[in-house]
Amino acid sequence: MNRHLLLISNSTNAGEAYLAWPAKDIEAFFKRFGIKKVLFVPYAGVTPGYDAYADKVAGVFAAMGVELDSVHRFEHPITAVQNAECIVVGGGNTFHLVQQMQRTGIMKAIREKVLQGCPYMGWSAGSNVACPSIRTTNDMPIVQPDSFDALNLVPFQINPHYLDANPAGHGGETREDRIREFMVANPDIYVAGLREATSLLVEGNRMELVGNRRMRLFKAGSEPREIEPGDVSFLLEK
Amino acid sequence: MNRHLLLISNSTNAGEAYLAWPAKDIEAFFKRFGIKKVLFVPYAGVTPGYDAYADKVAGVFAAMGVELDSVHRFEHPITAVQNAECIVVGGGNTFHLVQQMQRTGIMKAIREKVLQGCPYMGWSAGSNVACPSIRTTNDMPIVQPDSFDALNLVPFQINPHYLDANPAGHGGETREDRIREFMVANPDIYVAGLREATSLLVEGNRMELVGNRRMRLFKAGSEPREIEPGDVSFLLEK
Repeated sequence: MNRHLLLISNSTNAGEAYLAWPAKDIEAFFKRFGIKKVLFVPYAGVTPGYDAYADKVAGVFAAMGVELDSVHRFEHPITAVQNAECIVVGGGNTFHLVQQMQRTGIMKAIREKVLQGCPYMGWSAGSNVACPSIRTTNDMPIVQPDSFDALNLVPFQINPHYLDANPAGHGGETREDRIREFMVANPDIYVAGLREATSLLVEGNRMELVGNRRMRLFKAGSEPREIEPGDVSFLLEK
Repeated sequence: MNRHLLLISNSTNAGEAYLAWPAKDIEAFFKRFGIKKVLFVPYAGVTPGYDAYADKVAGVFAAMGVELDSVHRFEHPITAVQNAECIVVGGGNTFHLVQQMQRTGIMKAIREKVLQGCPYMGWSAGSNVACPSIRTTNDMPIVQPDSFDALNLVPFQINPHYLDANPAGHGGETREDRIREFMVANPDIYVAGLREATSLLVEGNRMELVGNRRMRLFKAGSEPREIEPGDVSFLLEK
Protein backbone atom coordinates (compact mmCIF):
# COMPACT_ATOMS: atom_id res chain seq x y z
CA MET A 1 0.00 0.00 0.00
CA ASN A 2 1.38 3.37 -1.06
CA ARG A 3 1.15 5.51 2.07
CA HIS A 4 3.34 8.01 3.85
CA LEU A 5 2.04 8.79 7.32
CA LEU A 6 3.34 10.52 10.42
CA LEU A 7 0.96 9.80 13.32
CA ILE A 8 1.88 11.76 16.43
CA SER A 9 0.51 11.07 19.92
CA ASN A 10 0.35 14.66 21.18
CA SER A 11 1.10 18.13 19.89
CA THR A 12 2.71 19.39 23.06
CA ASN A 13 4.36 17.98 26.14
CA ALA A 14 3.22 19.47 29.46
CA GLY A 15 5.07 22.75 30.04
CA GLU A 16 6.59 23.01 26.54
CA ALA A 17 5.86 25.30 23.55
CA TYR A 18 3.16 24.28 21.05
CA LEU A 19 4.38 21.51 18.69
CA ALA A 20 7.88 21.82 20.17
CA TRP A 21 8.74 18.18 20.77
CA PRO A 22 7.69 16.79 17.37
CA ALA A 23 9.15 19.78 15.42
CA LYS A 24 12.21 17.93 14.13
CA ASP A 25 10.16 14.90 13.03
CA ILE A 26 7.63 17.16 11.32
CA GLU A 27 10.38 19.08 9.55
CA ALA A 28 12.11 15.86 8.43
CA PHE A 29 8.79 14.57 7.08
CA PHE A 30 8.24 17.77 5.06
CA LYS A 31 11.83 17.65 3.71
CA ARG A 32 11.65 14.00 2.69
CA PHE A 33 8.79 14.79 0.29
CA GLY A 34 9.91 18.32 -0.67
CA ILE A 35 6.69 19.77 0.74
CA LYS A 36 6.29 23.56 0.38
CA LYS A 37 2.61 23.86 1.33
CA VAL A 38 0.18 21.78 3.38
CA LEU A 39 -3.59 21.60 3.56
CA PHE A 40 -4.59 21.82 7.23
CA VAL A 41 -7.80 20.33 8.66
CA PRO A 42 -8.74 22.40 11.75
CA TYR A 43 -12.12 20.78 12.50
CA ALA A 44 -11.02 19.31 15.86
CA GLY A 45 -10.25 22.84 17.09
CA VAL A 46 -13.56 23.59 18.78
CA THR A 47 -12.42 25.95 21.52
CA PRO A 48 -9.85 28.05 19.65
CA GLY A 49 -12.01 28.28 16.50
CA TYR A 50 -10.72 27.35 13.06
CA ASP A 51 -9.06 30.67 12.18
CA ALA A 52 -7.05 30.97 15.37
CA TYR A 53 -6.10 27.30 15.22
CA ALA A 54 -4.93 27.44 11.61
CA ASP A 55 -2.94 30.62 12.31
CA LYS A 56 -1.20 29.05 15.30
CA VAL A 57 -0.11 25.99 13.33
CA ALA A 58 0.82 28.16 10.33
CA GLY A 59 3.22 30.08 12.57
CA VAL A 60 5.03 26.89 13.57
CA PHE A 61 5.21 25.58 9.99
CA ALA A 62 6.36 28.96 8.59
CA ALA A 63 9.53 28.63 10.68
CA MET A 64 10.16 25.39 8.70
CA GLY A 65 9.62 27.19 5.38
CA VAL A 66 6.25 25.51 4.79
CA GLU A 67 3.03 27.38 3.94
CA LEU A 68 -0.36 26.38 5.31
CA ASP A 69 -3.80 26.61 3.71
CA SER A 70 -6.70 25.66 5.94
CA VAL A 71 -9.49 23.60 4.41
CA HIS A 72 -12.19 25.62 6.20
CA ARG A 73 -11.29 28.65 4.06
CA PHE A 74 -12.07 26.88 0.76
CA GLU A 75 -15.42 27.05 -0.93
CA HIS A 76 -14.84 23.55 -2.29
CA PRO A 77 -13.08 21.51 0.39
CA ILE A 78 -13.03 18.28 -1.65
CA THR A 79 -11.22 20.04 -4.49
CA ALA A 80 -8.78 21.50 -1.96
CA VAL A 81 -8.00 17.96 -0.78
CA GLN A 82 -7.60 16.70 -4.34
CA ASN A 83 -5.05 19.45 -5.05
CA ALA A 84 -3.09 19.12 -1.79
CA GLU A 85 0.65 18.41 -1.56
CA CYS A 86 0.35 17.15 2.00
CA ILE A 87 -2.58 16.81 4.43
CA VAL A 88 -2.20 17.75 8.10
CA VAL A 89 -4.94 17.02 10.64
CA GLY A 90 -4.63 18.75 14.00
CA GLY A 91 -5.77 17.55 17.41
CA GLY A 92 -8.70 18.62 19.56
CA ASN A 93 -12.10 16.97 19.72
CA THR A 94 -12.26 13.81 17.62
CA PHE A 95 -16.08 13.70 17.43
CA HIS A 96 -16.26 17.23 16.07
CA LEU A 97 -13.43 16.48 13.64
CA VAL A 98 -15.12 13.40 12.25
CA GLN A 99 -18.55 15.04 12.07
CA GLN A 100 -17.16 17.88 9.97
CA MET A 101 -15.00 15.58 7.82
CA GLN A 102 -18.13 13.56 7.04
CA ARG A 103 -20.34 16.60 6.39
CA THR A 104 -17.88 18.26 4.03
CA GLY A 105 -17.12 15.00 2.21
CA ILE A 106 -13.38 15.24 2.87
CA MET A 107 -13.30 11.95 4.84
CA LYS A 108 -13.60 10.00 1.61
CA ALA A 109 -11.52 12.48 -0.40
CA ILE A 110 -8.60 12.37 2.06
CA ARG A 111 -8.58 8.58 2.13
CA GLU A 112 -8.43 8.43 -1.67
CA LYS A 113 -5.75 11.13 -1.87
CA VAL A 114 -3.52 9.51 0.77
CA LEU A 115 -3.80 6.08 -0.87
CA GLN A 116 -2.60 7.76 -4.09
CA GLY A 117 0.60 8.70 -2.22
CA CYS A 118 -0.13 12.13 -0.73
CA PRO A 119 1.75 12.44 2.62
CA TYR A 120 -0.48 12.63 5.72
CA MET A 121 0.37 13.94 9.15
CA GLY A 122 -1.83 14.02 12.24
CA TRP A 123 -1.51 14.49 15.94
CA SER A 124 -3.87 13.34 18.71
CA ALA A 125 -7.36 13.42 17.11
CA GLY A 126 -5.56 13.62 13.75
CA SER A 127 -3.82 10.30 14.48
CA ASN A 128 -6.98 8.72 15.79
CA VAL A 129 -8.86 9.58 12.61
CA ALA A 130 -6.25 7.71 10.53
CA CYS A 131 -7.48 4.47 12.16
CA PRO A 132 -10.42 2.30 11.08
CA SER A 133 -12.68 4.10 13.56
CA ILE A 134 -12.64 6.63 16.38
CA ARG A 135 -13.63 3.98 18.95
CA THR A 136 -10.40 4.46 20.94
CA THR A 137 -10.50 8.22 21.35
CA ASN A 138 -10.28 9.76 24.82
CA ASP A 139 -12.46 12.70 23.83
CA MET A 140 -15.89 13.76 24.98
CA PRO A 141 -18.69 13.00 22.47
CA ILE A 142 -19.81 16.64 22.29
CA VAL A 143 -21.50 16.13 18.91
CA GLN A 144 -22.79 13.01 17.19
CA PRO A 145 -21.12 12.16 13.89
CA ASP A 146 -23.00 10.11 11.28
CA SER A 147 -20.60 7.25 11.90
CA PHE A 148 -17.61 6.34 14.09
CA ASP A 149 -15.83 5.09 10.94
CA ALA A 150 -12.68 7.01 10.07
CA LEU A 151 -9.96 7.10 7.38
CA ASN A 152 -8.81 3.50 7.77
CA LEU A 153 -5.26 4.23 6.63
CA VAL A 154 -3.85 1.66 9.07
CA PRO A 155 -5.57 -1.56 10.20
CA PHE A 156 -5.22 -1.04 13.97
CA GLN A 157 -6.48 1.50 16.50
CA ILE A 158 -4.36 4.18 18.16
CA ASN A 159 -5.10 5.40 21.66
CA PRO A 160 -3.25 8.72 21.72
CA HIS A 161 -1.97 10.28 24.97
CA TYR A 162 -1.71 6.78 26.45
CA LEU A 163 -1.10 7.17 30.18
CA ASP A 164 -0.19 4.83 32.98
CA ALA A 165 -0.94 7.32 35.74
CA ASN A 166 -4.44 7.71 37.10
CA PRO A 167 -5.44 11.08 38.60
CA ALA A 168 -5.36 11.14 42.40
CA GLY A 169 -8.72 10.29 44.02
CA HIS A 170 -10.28 9.10 40.77
CA GLY A 171 -12.88 6.35 41.32
CA GLY A 172 -13.65 5.84 37.62
CA GLU A 173 -12.11 3.60 35.00
CA THR A 174 -8.38 3.80 34.26
CA ARG A 175 -7.21 4.09 30.67
CA GLU A 176 -6.38 0.40 30.68
CA ASP A 177 -9.88 -0.44 31.98
CA ARG A 178 -11.36 1.51 29.06
CA ILE A 179 -9.23 -0.30 26.50
CA ARG A 180 -10.18 -3.63 28.09
CA GLU A 181 -13.83 -2.70 27.53
CA PHE A 182 -12.97 -1.87 23.92
CA MET A 183 -11.38 -5.31 23.46
CA VAL A 184 -14.46 -7.13 24.75
CA ALA A 185 -16.62 -5.30 22.20
CA ASN A 186 -13.96 -5.38 19.44
CA PRO A 187 -11.87 -8.54 19.90
CA ASP A 188 -10.25 -8.64 16.46
CA ILE A 189 -8.24 -5.44 16.39
CA TYR A 190 -4.99 -4.26 17.98
CA VAL A 191 -4.95 -1.09 20.08
CA ALA A 192 -1.66 0.79 20.22
CA GLY A 193 -1.43 2.89 23.38
CA LEU A 194 0.80 5.70 22.10
CA ARG A 195 2.50 7.49 24.98
CA GLU A 196 3.25 11.23 24.98
CA ALA A 197 6.25 12.26 22.84
CA THR A 198 6.06 9.24 20.56
CA SER A 199 4.81 8.79 17.01
CA LEU A 200 4.36 6.20 14.29
CA LEU A 201 6.08 6.72 10.94
CA VAL A 202 4.54 4.67 8.13
CA GLU A 203 6.17 4.16 4.72
CA GLY A 204 4.15 1.74 2.62
CA ASN A 205 4.11 -1.52 4.58
CA ARG A 206 6.85 -0.50 6.98
CA MET A 207 6.15 1.23 10.29
CA GLU A 208 8.46 2.56 12.97
CA LEU A 209 7.71 3.62 16.53
CA VAL A 210 9.63 6.88 17.00
CA GLY A 211 10.52 8.39 20.39
CA ASN A 212 12.09 7.33 23.63
CA ARG A 213 9.09 5.58 25.15
CA ARG A 214 7.62 2.18 24.64
CA MET A 215 4.15 1.64 23.22
CA ARG A 216 1.60 -0.44 25.12
CA LEU A 217 -0.08 -2.88 22.77
CA PHE A 218 -3.46 -4.48 23.49
CA LYS A 219 -5.24 -7.39 21.83
CA ALA A 220 -8.16 -9.40 23.17
CA GLY A 221 -7.04 -12.74 24.58
CA SER A 222 -3.45 -11.68 25.35
CA GLU A 223 -1.85 -9.70 28.15
CA PRO A 224 -0.86 -6.16 27.11
CA ARG A 225 2.68 -6.00 25.68
CA GLU A 226 5.31 -3.28 25.96
CA ILE A 227 6.85 -2.60 22.53
CA GLU A 228 10.25 -0.92 22.16
CA PRO A 229 10.83 1.95 19.69
CA GLY A 230 11.84 0.68 16.26
CA ASP A 231 10.22 -1.57 13.65
CA VAL A 232 6.55 -2.33 14.35
CA SER A 233 5.56 -3.24 10.78
CA PHE A 234 3.73 -6.34 11.99
CA LEU A 235 0.86 -4.07 13.02
CA LEU A 236 0.24 -3.19 9.38
CA GLU A 237 -0.54 -6.81 8.52
CA LYS A 238 -4.29 -7.25 8.69
CA MET B 1 -43.02 16.48 36.95
CA ASN B 2 -43.49 13.32 38.95
CA ARG B 3 -39.99 11.89 39.32
CA HIS B 4 -37.93 10.30 42.07
CA LEU B 5 -34.27 10.04 41.12
CA LEU B 6 -31.01 9.30 42.88
CA LEU B 7 -28.13 10.12 40.53
CA ILE B 8 -24.78 9.10 41.97
CA SER B 9 -21.40 10.21 40.63
CA ASN B 10 -19.44 7.02 41.27
CA SER B 11 -20.06 3.57 42.69
CA THR B 12 -16.87 3.36 44.66
CA ASN B 13 -14.25 5.69 46.10
CA ALA B 14 -10.63 4.74 45.45
CA GLY B 15 -9.57 2.10 47.99
CA GLU B 16 -13.08 1.39 49.38
CA ALA B 17 -15.47 -1.55 49.01
CA TYR B 18 -17.90 -1.68 46.09
CA LEU B 19 -20.85 0.73 46.58
CA ALA B 20 -19.63 1.45 50.12
CA TRP B 21 -19.82 5.23 50.20
CA PRO B 22 -23.35 5.63 48.76
CA ALA B 23 -24.78 2.66 50.73
CA LYS B 24 -26.64 4.77 53.28
CA ASP B 25 -28.16 7.02 50.58
CA ILE B 26 -29.18 3.99 48.52
CA GLU B 27 -30.75 2.33 51.54
CA ALA B 28 -32.63 5.51 52.51
CA PHE B 29 -33.92 5.80 48.94
CA PHE B 30 -35.21 2.21 49.00
CA LYS B 31 -36.84 2.76 52.42
CA ARG B 32 -38.56 5.99 51.41
CA PHE B 33 -40.50 4.17 48.71
CA GLY B 34 -40.84 0.81 50.50
CA ILE B 35 -38.91 -0.94 47.73
CA LYS B 36 -38.46 -4.70 48.12
CA LYS B 37 -37.17 -5.54 44.65
CA VAL B 38 -35.39 -3.61 41.90
CA LEU B 39 -34.93 -4.15 38.20
CA PHE B 40 -31.22 -3.78 37.41
CA VAL B 41 -29.86 -2.69 34.03
CA PRO B 42 -26.35 -4.21 33.67
CA TYR B 43 -25.64 -3.17 30.06
CA ALA B 44 -22.77 -0.83 30.96
CA GLY B 45 -20.91 -3.79 32.50
CA VAL B 46 -18.82 -4.81 29.52
CA THR B 47 -15.78 -6.26 31.24
CA PRO B 48 -17.41 -8.17 34.10
CA GLY B 49 -20.26 -9.47 31.92
CA TYR B 50 -23.91 -9.06 32.84
CA ASP B 51 -24.26 -12.09 35.14
CA ALA B 52 -21.25 -11.30 37.29
CA TYR B 53 -22.19 -7.62 37.42
CA ALA B 54 -25.80 -8.29 38.45
CA ASP B 55 -24.64 -10.78 41.09
CA LYS B 56 -22.19 -8.30 42.58
CA VAL B 57 -24.81 -5.57 42.92
CA ALA B 58 -27.40 -8.10 44.17
CA GLY B 59 -25.02 -8.98 47.03
CA VAL B 60 -24.84 -5.36 48.15
CA PHE B 61 -28.60 -4.84 47.90
CA ALA B 62 -29.39 -8.13 49.69
CA ALA B 63 -27.68 -6.74 52.78
CA MET B 64 -30.30 -3.94 52.63
CA GLY B 65 -33.15 -6.46 52.35
CA VAL B 66 -33.76 -5.65 48.68
CA GLU B 67 -33.95 -8.26 45.91
CA LEU B 68 -32.54 -7.69 42.45
CA ASP B 69 -33.76 -8.94 39.06
CA SER B 70 -31.53 -8.14 36.12
CA VAL B 71 -33.21 -7.05 32.88
CA HIS B 72 -30.82 -9.15 30.76
CA ARG B 73 -32.40 -12.30 32.21
CA PHE B 74 -35.90 -11.47 30.92
CA GLU B 75 -37.22 -12.66 27.61
CA HIS B 76 -39.30 -9.49 27.37
CA PRO B 77 -37.25 -6.63 28.78
CA ILE B 78 -39.86 -3.96 28.05
CA THR B 79 -42.46 -5.88 30.08
CA ALA B 80 -39.90 -6.25 32.88
CA VAL B 81 -39.52 -2.46 32.93
CA GLN B 82 -43.28 -1.94 32.90
CA ASN B 83 -43.62 -4.21 35.94
CA ALA B 84 -40.69 -2.80 37.92
CA GLU B 85 -40.92 -1.32 41.44
CA CYS B 86 -37.66 0.58 41.02
CA ILE B 87 -35.11 0.83 38.19
CA VAL B 88 -31.39 0.80 38.91
CA VAL B 89 -28.82 1.47 36.18
CA GLY B 90 -25.22 0.59 36.99
CA GLY B 91 -22.04 2.24 35.75
CA GLY B 92 -19.47 1.07 33.23
CA ASN B 93 -19.34 2.00 29.56
CA THR B 94 -22.02 4.56 28.64
CA PHE B 95 -21.90 3.87 24.89
CA HIS B 96 -22.51 0.17 25.40
CA LEU B 97 -25.26 0.92 27.91
CA VAL B 98 -27.09 3.24 25.54
CA GLN B 99 -26.66 0.96 22.54
CA GLN B 100 -28.27 -1.92 24.43
CA MET B 101 -31.01 0.25 25.94
CA GLN B 102 -31.90 1.40 22.43
CA ARG B 103 -31.75 -2.08 20.89
CA THR B 104 -33.93 -3.68 23.55
CA GLY B 105 -36.41 -0.80 23.52
CA ILE B 106 -36.02 -0.14 27.24
CA MET B 107 -34.76 3.42 26.71
CA LYS B 108 -38.28 4.55 25.87
CA ALA B 109 -39.93 2.17 28.36
CA ILE B 110 -37.81 3.37 31.29
CA ARG B 111 -38.49 7.01 30.50
CA GLU B 112 -42.24 6.39 30.46
CA LYS B 113 -42.13 4.31 33.64
CA VAL B 114 -40.06 6.86 35.58
CA LEU B 115 -42.32 9.74 34.49
CA GLN B 116 -45.24 7.70 35.89
CA GLY B 117 -43.49 7.83 39.29
CA CYS B 118 -41.29 4.71 39.38
CA PRO B 119 -38.14 5.50 41.41
CA TYR B 120 -34.87 5.52 39.39
CA MET B 121 -31.33 5.16 40.65
CA GLY B 122 -28.12 5.31 38.65
CA TRP B 123 -24.42 5.71 39.21
CA SER B 124 -21.76 6.90 36.81
CA ALA B 125 -23.01 5.80 33.33
CA GLY B 126 -26.40 5.25 34.99
CA SER B 127 -26.49 8.93 36.01
CA ASN B 128 -25.26 10.09 32.65
CA VAL B 129 -28.03 8.23 30.87
CA ALA B 130 -30.66 10.08 32.94
CA CYS B 131 -29.62 13.29 31.12
CA PRO B 132 -30.85 14.55 27.74
CA SER B 133 -27.88 12.92 26.01
CA ILE B 134 -24.61 11.10 26.69
CA ARG B 135 -22.57 13.97 25.26
CA THR B 136 -20.79 14.59 28.60
CA THR B 137 -19.63 11.05 29.31
CA ASN B 138 -15.95 10.36 30.02
CA ASP B 139 -16.16 6.90 28.48
CA MET B 140 -14.54 5.46 25.40
CA PRO B 141 -16.90 5.09 22.40
CA ILE B 142 -16.25 1.36 22.07
CA VAL B 143 -19.51 0.78 20.19
CA GLN B 144 -21.71 3.15 18.19
CA PRO B 145 -25.25 3.60 19.51
CA ASP B 146 -28.03 4.62 17.13
CA SER B 147 -28.20 7.97 18.88
CA PHE B 148 -26.50 9.91 21.69
CA ASP B 149 -29.97 10.77 23.04
CA ALA B 150 -30.71 9.39 26.49
CA LEU B 151 -33.54 9.26 29.06
CA ASN B 152 -33.97 13.03 29.42
CA LEU B 153 -35.24 12.78 33.01
CA VAL B 154 -33.49 16.05 33.94
CA PRO B 155 -32.90 19.03 31.63
CA PHE B 156 -29.12 19.42 32.24
CA GLN B 157 -26.05 17.27 31.64
CA ILE B 158 -24.08 15.47 34.35
CA ASN B 159 -20.35 14.90 34.03
CA PRO B 160 -19.78 12.10 36.54
CA HIS B 161 -16.40 11.54 38.24
CA TYR B 162 -15.67 15.24 37.83
CA LEU B 163 -12.02 15.78 38.66
CA ASP B 164 -9.82 18.78 39.15
CA ALA B 165 -6.56 16.83 39.10
CA ASN B 166 -4.87 16.06 35.83
CA PRO B 167 -2.63 12.98 35.60
CA ALA B 168 1.09 13.74 35.85
CA GLY B 169 2.79 14.24 32.46
CA HIS B 170 -0.49 14.38 30.52
CA GLY B 171 -0.29 16.60 27.44
CA GLY B 172 -3.92 16.14 26.43
CA GLU B 173 -7.05 18.04 27.34
CA THR B 174 -8.08 18.43 30.98
CA ARG B 175 -11.62 17.62 32.05
CA GLU B 176 -12.43 21.32 32.08
CA ASP B 177 -11.01 21.71 28.53
CA ARG B 178 -13.35 18.94 27.39
CA ILE B 179 -16.39 20.55 28.98
CA ARG B 180 -15.42 23.89 27.42
CA GLU B 181 -15.48 22.15 24.03
CA PHE B 182 -18.93 20.77 24.89
CA MET B 183 -20.20 24.28 25.70
CA VAL B 184 -19.02 25.67 22.35
CA ALA B 185 -20.96 22.96 20.53
CA ASN B 186 -23.92 22.98 23.00
CA PRO B 187 -24.26 26.51 24.38
CA ASP B 188 -27.77 26.20 25.80
CA ILE B 189 -27.38 23.53 28.44
CA TYR B 190 -25.86 23.39 31.91
CA VAL B 191 -23.19 20.81 32.73
CA ALA B 192 -22.96 19.70 36.34
CA GLY B 193 -19.48 18.40 37.16
CA LEU B 194 -20.36 15.88 39.88
CA ARG B 195 -17.32 15.10 42.02
CA GLU B 196 -16.64 11.68 43.57
CA ALA B 197 -18.78 10.84 46.62
CA THR B 198 -21.60 13.21 45.70
CA SER B 199 -25.05 12.64 44.24
CA LEU B 200 -28.17 14.45 43.12
CA LEU B 201 -31.49 13.60 44.76
CA VAL B 202 -34.51 14.65 42.72
CA GLU B 203 -38.09 14.75 44.06
CA GLY B 204 -40.44 16.22 41.51
CA ASN B 205 -39.18 19.74 40.84
CA ARG B 206 -36.85 19.84 43.83
CA MET B 207 -33.22 18.73 43.66
CA GLU B 208 -30.54 18.49 46.31
CA LEU B 209 -26.77 18.07 45.95
CA VAL B 210 -25.84 15.43 48.53
CA GLY B 211 -22.31 14.88 49.86
CA ASN B 212 -19.46 16.88 51.29
CA ARG B 213 -18.08 18.27 48.07
CA ARG B 214 -19.14 21.14 45.89
CA MET B 215 -20.34 20.67 42.32
CA ARG B 216 -18.68 22.55 39.46
CA LEU B 217 -21.31 24.05 37.20
CA PHE B 218 -20.66 25.06 33.60
CA LYS B 219 -22.71 27.13 31.16
CA ALA B 220 -21.54 28.77 27.96
CA GLY B 221 -20.95 32.49 28.39
CA SER B 222 -20.28 32.34 32.16
CA GLU B 223 -17.27 31.37 34.24
CA PRO B 224 -17.66 27.95 35.93
CA ARG B 225 -19.33 28.21 39.36
CA GLU B 226 -18.74 26.19 42.52
CA ILE B 227 -22.07 25.11 44.03
CA GLU B 228 -22.39 24.10 47.69
CA PRO B 229 -24.28 20.95 48.76
CA GLY B 230 -27.99 21.64 49.33
CA ASP B 231 -30.83 22.93 47.17
CA VAL B 232 -30.00 23.05 43.46
CA SER B 233 -33.58 22.99 42.15
CA PHE B 234 -32.86 25.86 39.75
CA LEU B 235 -31.17 23.33 37.47
CA LEU B 236 -34.50 21.58 36.91
CA GLU B 237 -35.99 24.70 35.32
CA LYS B 238 -35.61 24.38 31.60
